[in-house]
Parts: sequence; C-alpha cells; structure tokens
Amino acid sequence: MEANETLETILARTSVRNFTEQPVSAEDLLTMVRAGMAAPTGRDIRPWEFVIITDRATLDSLSAKLPYAKMLEKAPAAIAVLGNTKQSFYWYLDCAAATQNILLTAQSLGLGAVWTTTYPYEDRMKVVADQLCLPDSIQSLCVIPVGYPKGNTKPKDKWNESKVHYNQW
Amino acid sequence: MEANETLETILARTSVRNFTEQPVSAEDLLTMVRAGMAAPTGRDIRPWEFVIITDRATLDSLSAKLPYAKMLEKAPAAIAVLGNTKQSFYWYLDCAAATQNILLTAQSLGLGAVWTTTYPYEDRMKVVADQLCLPDSIQSLCVIPVGYPKGNTKPKDKWNESKVHYNQW
Repeated sequence: MEANETLETILARTSVRNFTEQPVSAEDLLTMVRAGMAAPTGRDIRPWEFVIITDRATLDSLSAKLPYAKMLEKAPAAIAVLGNTKQSFYWYLDCAAATQNILLTAQSLGLGAVWTTTYPYEDRMKVVADQLCLPDSIQSLCVIPVGYPKGNTKPKDKWNESKVHYNQW
Repeated sequence: MEANETLETILARTSVRNFTEQPVSAEDLLTMVRAGMAAPTGRDIRPWEFVIITDRATLDSLSAKLPYAKMLEKAPAAIAVLGNTKQSFYWYLDCAAATQNILLTAQSLGLGAVWTTTYPYEDRMKVVADQLCLPDSIQSLCVIPVGYPKGNTKPKDKWNESKVHYNQW
C-alpha cells in the first residue's frame, strides 16, 4: 500500500476518551474548525455552525446530561458541530464530513478526540440546544471532546475484505 | 496556523469532476476503501459496504441514469459507499465519515474525486440499487467518481468566521 502522511493519520486515528490536563490552544481549536469548513457540502450550501467550548461549567454540564459523553468532564475543550435545518434538509451529512475533518485534524496535531453522537437522538439534541442556547433552526450533530491523549491510543484494525465488492453486489 | 501534511490535504481537497483517461490502479482503489473503513462508527458497528466500479458499461449506465453524476462517463473508476440498514438506523452518518476519508485519501494519492449524493433521494438510491444488484437491506449513500484530475483543481476558500461561536450561540 502506498503510504503518505494523510493516509497514516487516517489509519492511526482512534476515538480518544481520556485526556491529560494540558489545555488545547485557541489556535488549534480554530484550526480544527477551519478544517471542518473545508469539507464538501451538498449544493455547496455549507449549512454548518460550530461552537468551541472551553468553559468548564459548560463542559461539566454537558458531561452530566449527555449519556455517552461523560469524558467531557475530563476534557479541556470540545467542539459542537451544528447544522442549519432551514438551509439544508440533509445538513447532518455535510456536518458528518466536517466532523471527520475535525477528528483527523486533531489527530494530526497530536490531540485526541471522539465523536459523541447527538443527532438523531432528540433527547440528546435537546440537551445541547438548551445548554448552548441554540435557535430552533440549529440542531446538533455531535459534540467532540478534545484534549491531549492519556493512555492507550492504538487504533483498531477495522479492515474487512468481505465488505469490498467489485462492480456489483 | 500550524501546518502539517494531513491538514494541507484537508484544505487542498476539492470536488474533482473532470478526469484524464489514465486508469486508477486497483491498489489505489483498495487503499481508498481501506481508509474508508478506518472511520469511526456509532457503537463501532461498521455498517458499511463498498463497491469498487471499473466496468465501463456500469459507469456509463450510472452516468446516464443519475442526475448529478454525469462525470462518471469520463471517470475511469468509482466507489459506491453503501450502508446496511439492518445493522444501524443511522448508517448514513458512519458512511459519510467513511466517504470523507475516501475523498481525502484520493487527494493524498494525487487523484481527484467527488461525492455525488444518492441518499436521501429515493429515486437515485433505486438507480444504484438496481444497477449494482443490491439486497433490500443495503442502501447507497453516494457514488464517488475517481480519476486523475484534469483542469482546475484549486479549492474554494470556505472559511467563514461568522460560523464560529464560543461556549454558546
């Protein structure tokens, strides 16, 4: 397999749920959001919005209220990826591509991150909407805790040849 | 902004719709699918399937029948990204992350690619299902034409500071 740094980042990325206490720089957080905005979107509508969260009380509150985002309690920062439902009826796909760019950029900067799902779970989306004071037209795809990894960050090998088909099923 | 090759690939990636006649190697196509399978999935279910298409008649037929995938007629290859609806009810998010990995890998290998949307358009999904002989439980997120870029591949600058919020809306 031909190797290059991008491919290595893609294959090395794993979901990081434990973080050291080291803060993430404002510059790195903005770089991640910038990478998010470089994703493709349907009809080039770019229906995304991003909330960078470093406020301790906000992180702790989200940690307490979201069922699968407890690691926010230990994360120094998070990025909420949101979509404007008035701009696109499939905003969540565009925001998913943006999220993957953010996760890969975190990996490339020596950071760790994890996609904690809110959409399509209405109860979780309401937690985020209430906490971040979102208008009705703005819904959350996910919340991404970000920090410097602590402990094992070995990626899973998810390669499965049986999932590859040629020319038809 | 801190620079690295992964970030450069993310920012340089653009939707490529014109291709030279140079074929894409089987190895590169498989590398792209391998990268797709390195994406995160909800509950680690990995509900994806991939069809690598190099058969000229299949590419031409999809080009003729899909409304926004005419460039398949000039593409030497394509990858259809599919999801197993029985395994996950939000397969399309996992497959969107996999698609972004595929697009970035294409860019990193000097190839060009573009996400042509099928999901959530039922008519387009039916075209792909019929052409690729998919079982009922397998649905298509997108078809990605792949080839060596021809002409302008300058990325758009999609950075928009007004989309960045801090701690709340």
